Amino acid sequence: MAAARTLRIGLIPGDGIGREVIPAGRRILESLPSSLNLKFSFVDLDAGYDTFQRTGSALPDKTVDTLKKECDGALFGAVSSPSTKVAGYSSPIVALRKKLDLYANVRPVKTTAGSSNGKPIDLVIVRENTEDLYVKEEQTKETPEGKVAEAIKRISERASYRISSIAGEIALRRQNIRSTAPVASGHSQPMVTITHKSNVLSQTDGLFRETARRALAAEKFSSINVEEQIVDSMVYKLFRQPEYYDVIVAPNLYGDILSDGAAALVGSLGLVPSANVGDGFAIGEPCHGSAPDIEGKGIANPIATLRSVALMLEFLGEEGAAAKIYAAVDGNLDEARFLSPDMGGNATTTQVLDDVLKRL
Amino acid sequence: MAAARTLRIGLIPGDGIGREVIPAGRRILESLPSSLNLKFSFVDLDAGYDTFQRTGSALPDKTVDTLKKECDGALFGAVSSPSTKVAGYSSPIVALRKKLDLYANVRPVKTTAGSSNGKPIDLVIVRENTEDLYVKEEQTKETPEGKVAEAIKRISERASYRISSIAGEIALRRQNIRSTAPVASGHSQPMVTITHKSNVLSQTDGLFRETARRALAAEKFSSINVEEQIVDSMVYKLFRQPEYYDVIVAPNLYGDILSDGAAALVGSLGLVPSANVGDGFAIGEPCHGSAPDIEGKGIANPIATLRSVALMLEFLGEEGAAAKIYAAVDGNLDEARFLSPDMGGNATTTQVLDDVLKRL
Ligand SMILES: CC(C)[C@H](C(=O)O)[C@@H](O)C(=O)O
Ligand SMILES: CC(C)[C@H](C(=O)O)[C@@H](O)C(=O)O
Repeated sequence: MAAARTLRIGLIPGDGIGREVIPAGRRILESLPSSLNLKFSFVDLDAGYDTFQRTGSALPDKTVDTLKKECDGALFGAVSSPSTKVAGYSSPIVALRKKLDLYANVRPVKTTAGSSNGKPIDLVIVRENTEDLYVKEEQTKETPEGKVAEAIKRISERASYRISSIAGEIALRRQNIRSTAPVASGHSQPMVTITHKSNVLSQTDGLFRETARRALAAEKFSSINVEEQIVDSMVYKLFRQPEYYDVIVAPNLYGDILSDGAAALVGSLGLVPSANVGDGFAIGEPCHGSAPDIEGKGIANPIATLRSVALMLEFLGEEGAAAKIYAAVDGNLDEARFLSPDMGGNATTTQVLDDVLKRL
Repeated sequence: MAAARTLRIGLIPGDGIGREVIPAGRRILESLPSSLNLKFSFVDLDAGYDTFQRTGSALPDKTVDTLKKECDGALFGAVSSPSTKVAGYSSPIVALRKKLDLYANVRPVKTTAGSSNGKPIDLVIVRENTEDLYVKEEQTKETPEGKVAEAIKRISERASYRISSIAGEIALRRQNIRSTAPVASGHSQPMVTITHKSNVLSQTDGLFRETARRALAAEKFSSINVEEQIVDSMVYKLFRQPEYYDVIVAPNLYGDILSDGAAALVGSLGLVPSANVGDGFAIGEPCHGSAPDIEGKGIANPIATLRSVALMLEFLGEEGAAAKIYAAVDGNLDEARFLSPDMGGNATTTQVLDDVLKRL
């Protein structure tokens, strides 16, 4: 038998319910069947508003260095934003995505028997993760008429090409999985929908659109049906006809907005995972935030984190392990016996986790 | 009896179904009861992609001049965007908003008995209409790694203050109307929700947020409950709990996206009106686009335009006339006998219009 592969995983709970769900992510990794021949080691890392208040930095160098030098992947919980502007504070997850060049933010949104309250949805939002307005280059001028602030929205051919190629790869990969499980939308071909606002932003979003078209015109993507949708119409269509979509590729900010919209359609943000993916590295991150309203009550839904663990494993090449987690989570949702309050149930984080673990 | 007030209205059908719905808008103005003591004169004006192809300009100077010099208000249909980039073409409605300083884009979204398929929604999106990424200041550089394009997102204190004050005025006005008709959301106080992404854009969206807070802290708005919501969460909440919202104020692009999202919740974009409002001038504009798929079939839903006519009248100080139109439209939707195909019916544009006119 081959030596087990050992993956070292950074654990960055952050603030709020991040601290309640990341331990669940660790537990599921530790509970994977030994037949998978996978071992894990963990390192606890700091980031977030609390860290900022203690140390003056929301993302200590040590966290970034350890991830770069020691880790194969990581799990990130959530960070809380201060309710008013605080000098020197800026979002650590946005910084982390850039510092580790995690250029793709992958957000699958999918109904299961237990979570669906209507049409079956099975789509993935593939969000560019390093540029757009997230370059955070801003300045403010005083004028006789008051302050005027400007921010740069930057779109590069390189990042647009890269994210569109990943979107294409994901569309093909999904298609393979689907040959056994029929797709919700009933498309026989994989589809990628390019989202932009090039009717207003002809240069920036125009570049994104053209580059995405070019990337997806590659021979290897010839089986993919490529469509496009202006971002405002995309939100409209997403609400009206979510079952139509397969892979949606978008610049950073539209991807941010669309993934929250899609999450609303499957019942709870507490179900929706994401992975921040770069070359050879991935950070799993639940899409929900720090949720101060339920912090400390032990009722946070761990499903988004468990699915984020699976997504991280997929991008680290461990699809078998990922499949086990997805199946266990789907089992929990389909049976609908242990559901957290956001899903209309009354199970605690631990009860949901235990129910998933016993299905592994 | 006082002399009738005469309003001169510019008619700008534009492209596609704009040409089918703007005539309906004219008809309803001509059909208003004479007891209102209002007269209308009309002037036909060019704009759009078709105009661009004929004349080289999507928004001829003559259109802008006539609106400025002769008109009290206008109705704008829709324009089609070329499917690939066309040198020299740029959206005439975006230009018109800026040239006439129509700084507020007001988009009420509301269910009626006929249009609701769930919770009663009654909200207004008040969208800043002159700046943000819509300043369209873009540039593209060639770099060794390919093209890099940048756009400016500009947020000014002045425009943010102005739009937030209008949002406050609208919230108060709605509250007055509601003292007779209870509000969907059941709030006893008017509410304004400020939407932004200041957790990433601390200067630009930070300025919008702070300025909106300051504007809405004015004494005259003391009865208003002011809340805020990050734009991605706003889309999530809008889908999950639309009945909660009253007035939503947002920078230009978020307002664009949110209003399409809200439109999806009431069944059809074909129902949703807007008004582009400046000091003493208003352009009514249906939120749907040029809809090339149904162009020329005579089945475009005229409701969004009829409501836009009413909204224009409201902002020209003719609330009585506006109320008549709203009531006639609600009557048509509640009875649900003459509905266009987007609403699941099979009535033509003319049949829907005639049904509304007979209820005036
Ligand atoms: C917290 C915030 C900076 C972040 C983002 O905008 O990317 C969040 O909304 C997300 O989607 O991960
Ligand atoms: C056509 C387009 C330029 C326009 C906009 O983005 O403002 C439209 O989407 C709207 O909402 O009126």
